[in-house]
Amino acid sequence: MAKRARKKKVAPIRRAADAPVKLTDKDKKTLKSIVGMGDRVVKIAGLSRAPHLDIPSRSLSNVKFNKSKRFIEMGKGTNKRELFNLSQAKSYMQTMLVASGCKQLIEQGKSTSIRGMYYLLKHTIEGTKEETFNEQSECDPVIEDVEVSLNALREELHVYASNRGSIVGNLVFDDSGDEIDCSRMGSGGYTIPSICEPDIIQFKKCEADFILHVEKDTVWRRFNEDKFWRTHNCILTHGGGQPPRGVRRLLHRMHHELELPVYCLLDNDPWGYYIYSVIKQGSINLAYESRRMAIPGAKFMGLRSKDYDRCELTPSVTIKLSDQDIKRAKQIASYPWFKDKKPWQKEIQTMLKNGFKLEVEALISKDISYVTEQYVPDRLEDRDFLD
Amino acid sequence: MAKRARKKKVAPIRRAADAPVKLTDKDKKTLKSIVGMGDRVVKIAGLSRAPHLDIPSRSLSNVKFNKSKRFIEMGKGTNKRELFNLSQAKSYMQTMLVASGCKQLIEQGKSTSIRGMYYLLKHTIEGTKEETFNEQSECDPVIEDVEVSLNALREELHVYASNRGSIVGNLVFDDSGDEIDCSRMGSGGYTIPSICEPDIIQFKKCEADFILHVEKDTVWRRFNEDKFWRTHNCILTHGGGQPPRGVRRLLHRMHHELELPVYCLLDNDPWGYYIYSVIKQGSINLAYESRRMAIPGAKFMGLRSKDYDRCELTPSVTIKLSDQDIKRAKQIASYPWFKDKKPWQKEIQTMLKNGFKLEVEALISKDISYVTEQYVPDRLEDRDFLD
Repeated sequence: MAKRARKKKVAPIRRAADAPVKLTDKDKKTLKSIVGMGDRVVKIAGLSRAPHLDIPSRSLSNVKFNKSKRFIEMGKGTNKRELFNLSQAKSYMQTMLVASGCKQLIEQGKSTSIRGMYYLLKHTIEGTKEETFNEQSECDPVIEDVEVSLNALREELHVYASNRGSIVGNLVFDDSGDEIDCSRMGSGGYTIPSICEPDIIQFKKCEADFILHVEKDTVWRRFNEDKFWRTHNCILTHGGGQPPRGVRRLLHRMHHELELPVYCLLDNDPWGYYIYSVIKQGSINLAYESRRMAIPGAKFMGLRSKDYDRCELTPSVTIKLSDQDIKRAKQIASYPWFKDKKPWQKEIQTMLKNGFKLEVEALISKDISYVTEQYVPDRLEDRDFLD
Repeated sequence: MAKRARKKKVAPIRRAADAPVKLTDKDKKTLKSIVGMGDRVVKIAGLSRAPHLDIPSRSLSNVKFNKSKRFIEMGKGTNKRELFNLSQAKSYMQTMLVASGCKQLIEQGKSTSIRGMYYLLKHTIEGTKEETFNEQSECDPVIEDVEVSLNALREELHVYASNRGSIVGNLVFDDSGDEIDCSRMGSGGYTIPSICEPDIIQFKKCEADFILHVEKDTVWRRFNEDKFWRTHNCILTHGGGQPPRGVRRLLHRMHHELELPVYCLLDNDPWGYYIYSVIKQGSINLAYESRRMAIPGAKFMGLRSKDYDRCELTPSVTIKLSDQDIKRAKQIASYPWFKDKKPWQKEIQTMLKNGFKLEVEALISKDISYVTEQYVPDRLEDRDFLD
């Protein structure tokens, strides 16, 4: 390895513009939380007590389904993380380091990915051979710890996830100063940004009646090509599989601020059920963000296990359930938010009895545009959704 | 399995609009090729001879690097595919079936994904228990066979790949009747459609001086956030890793029709080298599309193996090469189009000697905007590209 030991130094940067950074109110609030976190440590140290942090626990035992809010949320359990504890010192320091990285980002008016955050903070601690982080997998959970500790979404800490998913439809918004008219977005559509907070995206005009969220870009393209959103006056989104945070946040904001129903068109398989579960109730691992991401009012439009009969599909287009699928389906059926819902129990039992799964694309066997001209219009008419 | 044998029947479809389909000149040409393929079979059968197809061979032995055109292309080798040959009858029939599926798509003015094509054509052959296709993996190569046989890009057959990748910058084009101004695309950008043929995308106005293509959406976001394309008057694209066909085709068209240089900013690892190789010379597997996809004039901007020293990076941000990386690097070094290029040999040898790889994100360790404010501006100034 032709590496030399070298101190990390910040090179002089040629700046395009040394304009002062304009902080949003949200930025100021987040900065205040970060500084407060540091101040508490200083205060405790000033009292000659051992510095520590109380990190809300993200373990399964501290996650529960809130029946009245209808989403997954975190309990009040916390874990103490102490500086003068051999097994906690490193993660204590990592937490402070990530918080300082977020502070730097906000102050500079910039954002970065979780990978970027890792590189920003990774270095050999002076006078030792110890790395601040050995792998990104060490850094990612610490970012989540900082999120829960500060009660700030990752996006508010200026850390972004991947840009995945596209949008078209009868909606106009402002994104970073540009007016985005989603009804004039050609065949490609607008890429849903990874950060969809109100300081970046402001809704300007919405004439749509509802949101149709589909699982895959290929299905989305069929709907866009048929200009479904125009004939049915809606907004059309996809999330490229399990939707990334930006897509979930935008759906959440459109649902609540524009008061639009969200209908999900996903595959009839455990993966499709799970995508719906995350959109609706939030994810177990990121329960703390449910209140700004989960959409308890979202409806599952299909595909349904009964669609094999209802749509008169052929055995050719079915896919046999694997052992893994069966196991996963049973797990999902036992989720607290599905357990007491008879229609969902029936839905999953029917899939298991069928012994096969169905992809949305299977409807193409009826006709290329069956999904846009018959399946979805029929569901919108008969209101046969799963809740 | 609760499946019933059921004949495939086309259900009556409620059509949004039964407008006649307007075929483009390209569509008419492609249709003529497909019909010609069928006519030849009828003619041969009329002469009481055994129907067959001559499919250009896509094997490695029929692929060569054309030194004057500077891209990979197919040779003249073909394989006979006969109906009355037990080992070829199925693939013969599958080929005709895919051709008829493409005909149907073009005539209806619609497009579908390769998964959609599989579902469109999959059925139990009447009076038998035989499926037309058992798996999508049986259908995909047949689509490629039809492409080479008809000398038509997949996009011309109305079959699309995934929508991945985004674009922003000083460019205006028309996409399916909508004017897309890539300089007013906020933080998300325009999703590069999977089909970028001239009947869908028409360039209207371009003031940019060059194209900067980056590997990942997260790096792209840094450049867009810093409005790099505005300060450096360029077009900014990413392809979400190995760029899908739509991105490659759009880059190709912008390079040739708008006469813009293409600079690639990729990771310093064998995967980054390979992405560059595909953008520049085309891929071995899809050699027949090189002339409409490959960009022999594309330049590799970095990251370079010498950047560890040049940018004064720390050992912390290096990633040790795996055995797989080393093997892959040696393979790439022996590609005919890299073999005789001394700078590339030196580049790969330096990486192997370093023993580590570098991601573009590693530059964040210098400063969040080092890549946009120093690294790329320096390369544009010193013109130190690999060709």
